[in-house]
Amino acid sequence: MRDFSSDHRWLSLNTATVRKQGDLLQIIDACARQNIRAIDPWRDQVASVGLDRAARAVREAGLDLSGYCRGGMFVSDAAHRAAARDDNRRAVDEAKALGAPCIVLVVGGLPQYSRPGSSASKDIAEAWGRVHDGIAEMLDYARSANMPLAIEPLHPAYAADRACVNTTRQALDLCDAIDPARSGMLGVALDVYHIWWDFELMAQIARAGKDRIFAFHVCDWLVPTRDILNDRGMMGDGVIDIKRLRAAVEAQGFAGYSEIEIFSNDWWTRPMDEVLRTCIERHRTVV
Amino acid sequence: MRDFSSDHRWLSLNTATVRKQGDLLQIIDACARQNIRAIDPWRDQVASVGLDRAARAVREAGLDLSGYCRGGMFVSDAAHRAAARDDNRRAVDEAKALGAPCIVLVVGGLPQYSRPGSSASKDIAEAWGRVHDGIAEMLDYARSANMPLAIEPLHPAYAADRACVNTTRQALDLCDAIDPARSGMLGVALDVYHIWWDFELMAQIARAGKDRIFAFHVCDWLVPTRDILNDRGMMGDGVIDIKRLRAAVEAQGFAGYSEIEIFSNDWWTRPMDEVLRTCIERHRTVV
Repeated sequence: MRDFSSDHRWLSLNTATVRKQGDLLQIIDACARQNIRAIDPWRDQVASVGLDRAARAVREAGLDLSGYCRGGMFVSDAAHRAAARDDNRRAVDEAKALGAPCIVLVVGGLPQYSRPGSSASKDIAEAWGRVHDGIAEMLDYARSANMPLAIEPLHPAYAADRACVNTTRQALDLCDAIDPARSGMLGVALDVYHIWWDFELMAQIARAGKDRIFAFHVCDWLVPTRDILNDRGMMGDGVIDIKRLRAAVEAQGFAGYSEIEIFSNDWWTRPMDEVLRTCIERHRTVV
Repeated sequence: MRDFSSDHRWLSLNTATVRKQGDLLQIIDACARQNIRAIDPWRDQVASVGLDRAARAVREAGLDLSGYCRGGMFVSDAAHRAAARDDNRRAVDEAKALGAPCIVLVVGGLPQYSRPGSSASKDIAEAWGRVHDGIAEMLDYARSANMPLAIEPLHPAYAADRACVNTTRQALDLCDAIDPARSGMLGVALDVYHIWWDFELMAQIARAGKDRIFAFHVCDWLVPTRDILNDRGMMGDGVIDIKRLRAAVEAQGFAGYSEIEIFSNDWWTRPMDEVLRTCIERHRTVV
């Protein structure tokens, strides 16, 4: 397991962590001030400053990307399917322009939440089928751009509205079904927040192996959690034994960034540089 | 699959559903008014009117029980272990006095939440071990009283503070480990709220079979969920396809009550008989 205690060269900042404090260009400037050398930007943040300008700012700052957030939301009714497909193809094109190593997939839940305007449904089994087909279709396009896709299993609390892939086992089953050859183009993004509770986690991380683990995200689970989406904790403030999980992915050979992604009504109110300094300190001590 | 549309003879009321509107005796009276013939009472509600009085009221009302809530909270530090064991033995004695068919087990999460006063820990693997050992120990006592124990897998959102058994697979693995002979003394209580999202659910219900399914609980998952514990929905108001899940347990031979358990800051504010009438109507239409 790598020693993070003396520097933060393996810290990547998911830019949603400070999305309320500034735009992507301001976040990139703050990363330069704090010697953070990698980010994972969100599509809406890129769009709001313009793709070309974002790509240039990343390049000029010498930043690495640890991923691009996000593709997916594959579940829709028939009327919205072509738009969803095209939207995901644009995500691939953007990721390529930005130099991202992979696209993180949040696969979608029921159609009325995943692609608003779709007819309402309670059929989660149908949603699972749509996710399978949507990933397979997107992967064809992503292969042609040589852009890997990382399925992110989301906490089961988001099954209805964000992602109906909720365990590492389920995500890996999809990888095996869609990419049985383990081509390196389909894998998982593992966020401790979503998966820490899973009694099968260690076995599934071993099953994933190095060639299926594309990203590792950290934050913490607070008790109590006051908001199901936006009350994630700074590493060390909650109950997750983050080092144990990082040790497990690194035991498989994962040697990439430890990406900090915190959606928090609390941390979004604090000055950007204070948040980043805290991230760095916790990265060195508890990640 | 049984037809619930013309009566509510298979409706049981988990008494937490109206816990804010009255004590256990008042709830039993309301059940009589609404021709509800079964309940699942909570230990604190029994204690507050007294065990003897509660048992007499149940008997005099001719009520069935569909379970007794709850045993468990097995995870503690060493200093609190004997107290936890004794507490669970008292739960068995009370269940016996009340004529309950089983005790529902909420197994506990990390020790500081499960048994307050215990030393804090982030070691969920240790908690899983404690749960195994605690159930095994409690089962010895429960066998002597002929009182079956039903492990309730809780939604992963409760892994830290309420139960670190979070999938039907995990609960059944415990059953297999502790009671490999399938003696009928250890099984599961399946609540749609906790398990509806699980891609393995149908396979695990089939694995459980009739002799491991001791209870079936219903409510609904609301989008958005505004409170992680107390914003459960009335059946039909959320996204769960309840009939599909009831069909699955009944296909295994389950023929017991469909128990309504709703923790809801909303429904707790409404008059008790209004809540019960709504439960009955939804039981006949969407359960």
